[in-house]
Amino acid sequence: MDAKKYLEEAQVDAILIYNGSNEDLNFYYFTRLLYGGIFEGSFAVITEDGVKVITSKLEEQSARKGKNEVFVYSSSSEREELLKKIVGNAERIGLNYDSLSLRDFHKLRDILGDREYVNVAEKIMEWRMVKDDEELNLMREAAKIASEVADSIPDFLVEGMREYELAARIAYEMFKMGAEDVAFTSIVAFGENAAEPHYLSGERKLKRGDFVLCDFGARYHHYNSDITRTFVFGRASEEQREIYYTVLEAQKLGISLVKDGAHGSEIDARVKELIDSTKYKGRMIHSTGHGLGLAVHDHVGLSTQRDLVLREGMVVTVEPGIYLPGYGGVRIEDDVLVRKEGREVLTSARKDELIEA
Amino acid sequence: MDAKKYLEEAQVDAILIYNGSNEDLNFYYFTRLLYGGIFEGSFAVITEDGVKVITSKLEEQSARKGKNEVFVYSSSSEREELLKKIVGNAERIGLNYDSLSLRDFHKLRDILGDREYVNVAEKIMEWRMVKDDEELNLMREAAKIASEVADSIPDFLVEGMREYELAARIAYEMFKMGAEDVAFTSIVAFGENAAEPHYLSGERKLKRGDFVLCDFGARYHHYNSDITRTFVFGRASEEQREIYYTVLEAQKLGISLVKDGAHGSEIDARVKELIDSTKYKGRMIHSTGHGLGLAVHDHVGLSTQRDLVLREGMVVTVEPGIYLPGYGGVRIEDDVLVRKEGREVLTSARKDELIEA
Repeated sequence: MDAKKYLEEAQVDAILIYNGSNEDLNFYYFTRLLYGGIFEGSFAVITEDGVKVITSKLEEQSARKGKNEVFVYSSSSEREELLKKIVGNAERIGLNYDSLSLRDFHKLRDILGDREYVNVAEKIMEWRMVKDDEELNLMREAAKIASEVADSIPDFLVEGMREYELAARIAYEMFKMGAEDVAFTSIVAFGENAAEPHYLSGERKLKRGDFVLCDFGARYHHYNSDITRTFVFGRASEEQREIYYTVLEAQKLGISLVKDGAHGSEIDARVKELIDSTKYKGRMIHSTGHGLGLAVHDHVGLSTQRDLVLREGMVVTVEPGIYLPGYGGVRIEDDVLVRKEGREVLTSARKDELIEA
Repeated sequence: MDAKKYLEEAQVDAILIYNGSNEDLNFYYFTRLLYGGIFEGSFAVITEDGVKVITSKLEEQSARKGKNEVFVYSSSSEREELLKKIVGNAERIGLNYDSLSLRDFHKLRDILGDREYVNVAEKIMEWRMVKDDEELNLMREAAKIASEVADSIPDFLVEGMREYELAARIAYEMFKMGAEDVAFTSIVAFGENAAEPHYLSGERKLKRGDFVLCDFGARYHHYNSDITRTFVFGRASEEQREIYYTVLEAQKLGISLVKDGAHGSEIDARVKELIDSTKYKGRMIHSTGHGLGLAVHDHVGLSTQRDLVLREGMVVTVEPGIYLPGYGGVRIEDDVLVRKEGREVLTSARKDELIEA
């Protein structure tokens, strides 16, 4: 989308994104400075004639790698002058209230004076929801890294290892494959801990017969993947198999419903309906999925609590689970790109058979 | 310090910390909820009679592990009611403008109405600068983890390995020792890359004769360490040795000057004076150190640009370096606790001899 269109849709004269005391992911969205540089304290200013970057001398080289006009300051007074010059006479200024700190807002207002400041956070998120080719290529790579690591997890399992050791190994393998960071603190839950959807990882040692639930992702040039696979260490019991294949069926149903025009709330409802029709009724205690992109929880996804009409270019996770407190749980998660006709599943790790590692 | 004293010093009736759309490290400072729980969307309210935590049902168990009075909500209207009740008639409300997003500020004002809102960010940082025993014990452990890993780096080096592989290995080893996270994205720079103080890590392969500069830290229950060691892979040249021992001498001088009452700016000046008296004049292109704690760059430290009078209980890094563009560089960094008499060096990795790995 070009700069004029952004301003028109947001009904403002300029959009000002400050990557200040709080990081603002929208800085990367607008500038596409995704391949190096930290840009702390840098501005992205969207005006009628394009996206402009105001940055310090330290970041000049990184900033010039992008397609934006770049303005470099070497003192804070120079920075203020540049900001005033570039914002010019714009009267209605769009800001991202979700990230901008109160301190930075006051500083901005001191520099730019009394204008009309407008919150464009939701509008920007609408734009961010639909990914373009550059973004999708990065997300495909992030998904590939996570998928390959997911496939090797069974080889890493050793009796008596601790959850956090496996979490560390997963991170290590992703870094070795070129991830710049983990997308979020990995969840590695053994045995009964797999029953807590928001468990992280701890000192629990791996025992024969345990569920091994791993929920993690890679960050690749600022874009994220998010995958969950659940294994059993040793021979699976009948109950474990039943849980696994119930979740798998629900997950496949969920994926099959993803397409342009579908309602996220309806997919969530259908997935839960399936699980509720089994003996695991009521055991799926979260929504089916969330939007994915520059943030891991990028935007609303597949949830009955707040609907989203899926559009081509959106990426959502599909991640049903069944949780039995004190016993364990299974979750299976993939990242799914909405297509005009159907969908593309970005993550590719094996899941069709319960793996007994 | 007790709640009354906080309010007195900040000259407010209540302090309101919101761990909202931006994480606020001050939430952990006041509540000391350091041992589990995420607390997204939770409040810490400091009133005359203590620190109160407002949190959701999901976090109730974690919140009750602390020493604060805990209030639990299960809906956003309940949360608003609790907030109003606890803030009560307080007229002057202290907020942390450095983290609080504009969105959250507006929400707070909608709930609490027109009161006098005051920025207490700087005041809180003054308090945070001086660590108490609980904080220091966590920082000692964070320093121990980083030091032990630093000592094993020479064993990890293999010809042809890439910088990011070593970065991944360092993280892996810290996680295995119980770190909950890396303190920051590790810097691993081989050869000529060691000449850039803010380099992260990349695809550069390790060759014989390279400098290996590693700058990293561990996060342990929210508190950080930060250490740098520089090695040579294979036999060191005379030049490499000269750079190393010049930095080492400057670093030891810097450490020896840390004590209660000393001026950070003076320590920075003295360290640079030493380096400028050698053939490496002008090659130390950053300040000598920064404050360390809940944040890695916690507060101003040893810098001529902004002075800090050191006080017992502060922790600062001492990290001089020499950088020769195109050739390489050396930095040596330790974390130093200011004592009434002298200092305690928290990090303990070997440094007295240049290690040829």
